[in-house]
Amino acid sequence: MIKNITIIGSGNVATQLSNAFKKNELKIVQIISRNKISGKELAKKTNSCYTDDFSRIKKTDLIIICVSDDNIQEISNKIPSNMSVVHTSGSTSLNVLKKNKNYGVVYPLQSLNKNQPISFQNIPICIEGNNKNYARILLDLCQKITNKIYFLDSKKRKHLHLSAVIASNFSNFCYLMAKKELDKYHINFDLLKPLILQTANQILNTPPLICQTGPAKRKDKKVIKEHLTMLKDENYKKIYKLLSQSIIKEYDKQL
Amino acid sequence: MIKNITIIGSGNVATQLSNAFKKNELKIVQIISRNKISGKELAKKTNSCYTDDFSRIKKTDLIIICVSDDNIQEISNKIPSNMSVVHTSGSTSLNVLKKNKNYGVVYPLQSLNKNQPISFQNIPICIEGNNKNYARILLDLCQKITNKIYFLDSKKRKHLHLSAVIASNFSNFCYLMAKKELDKYHINFDLLKPLILQTANQILNTPPLICQTGPAKRKDKKVIKEHLTMLKDENYKKIYKLLSQSIIKEYDKQL
Repeated sequence: MIKNITIIGSGNVATQLSNAFKKNELKIVQIISRNKISGKELAKKTNSCYTDDFSRIKKTDLIIICVSDDNIQEISNKIPSNMSVVHTSGSTSLNVLKKNKNYGVVYPLQSLNKNQPISFQNIPICIEGNNKNYARILLDLCQKITNKIYFLDSKKRKHLHLSAVIASNFSNFCYLMAKKELDKYHINFDLLKPLILQTANQILNTPPLICQTGPAKRKDKKVIKEHLTMLKDENYKKIYKLLSQSIIKEYDKQL
Repeated sequence: MIKNITIIGSGNVATQLSNAFKKNELKIVQIISRNKISGKELAKKTNSCYTDDFSRIKKTDLIIICVSDDNIQEISNKIPSNMSVVHTSGSTSLNVLKKNKNYGVVYPLQSLNKNQPISFQNIPICIEGNNKNYARILLDLCQKITNKIYFLDSKKRKHLHLSAVIASNFSNFCYLMAKKELDKYHINFDLLKPLILQTANQILNTPPLICQTGPAKRKDKKVIKEHLTMLKDENYKKIYKLLSQSIIKEYDKQL
């Protein structure tokens, strides 16, 4: 059973995960981070010690790597192979950690921000272990902070990450485009907020294929044409056109 | 003051608006609808009479046209010019009703579905009148069902409607694409729901420009390239590429 933990990193994921584990009676022993300021701050908050020197890494029950995707491989090379280690990335294979005896992935599917308090209770965590037994140990650990646990291999996790980019990052960019259009005409973005919330909320109970509405769904070419004339930004025009065509195509396929 | 109302149409907007007004002590006198089944059903629910014959239209304090955009002009021609009339469309000008003495627009900004009970309390309603006095009368009416009332002229209302398509219809299509990707690999769509909700909820307090995250925001070309390889649908590939390029461009402009 995992009782004490070393965290590598001091960013959003490192902060939120170590807070959540600490609250649930796990001991955070050490924070290792290149960033002295945020590293020391997180160590203070979690009542642990800080270092930026990997030669001083302490052997705990689990090393959690919470650094940017590009740095995971390099960091993992610095961790002695007799230690148990996981990373927290959606788009990185389990295999980058394979030189260690026990290794895995603990991927929380949420945009974490270190300055916004969050409860993990509703955040899905995807787990992968180098063997069934180790996956089970990671399950026991993560069940302390959430009930929404899914076992996913690296391939599936990568597809989940891709889907998360489409569903979350791209929809936020739609909000951004809409706000910029409203700003141009001095229309309050507050007006759109209830619609945005309802659009997201309705997929809880109804598949998005059923929820789709709007001029493209109705094949209302008159409105689509007028909207394309109204959009002055060439890039937004391209996006409006491509997405409308794609919606029309999608529902033609359904017939 | 408006006390009794005639509704033209028996679809989603007609049903939800007449229910809301009826609940707030306005009298629905008549439902006029080509669709005999839904027209009679709505008349029964609202304790009003039904006809499909415009020559039998009753003069009430307000005629509300709740038909599809394409039919508004044709329907409005059938309404005697001494009657007060509004339409409920985001993308249609006030002017299509100009032959009447009093006319206006009452545009509820929400996707309404007649089978899903809804409270108007949180739904913004955009009002336009042919003069200040009549806009004031429409304000008094709509305040009975919501506090979120905005005065918008036809040009602004059209831009609002365009923005609503981008923020709502396009983000739903992002959910749809994400779900289809997950389905292919037998990954449960439930996994994405908390992220989708959080992405929508965070714009309540933080502008979408600040909320943006993901590989395109980080200019993580390695992940973008990998995602493009993973997407097999040529159309989805195009959308991923265009949206990622647009996000990169947007944040380059910000520097």
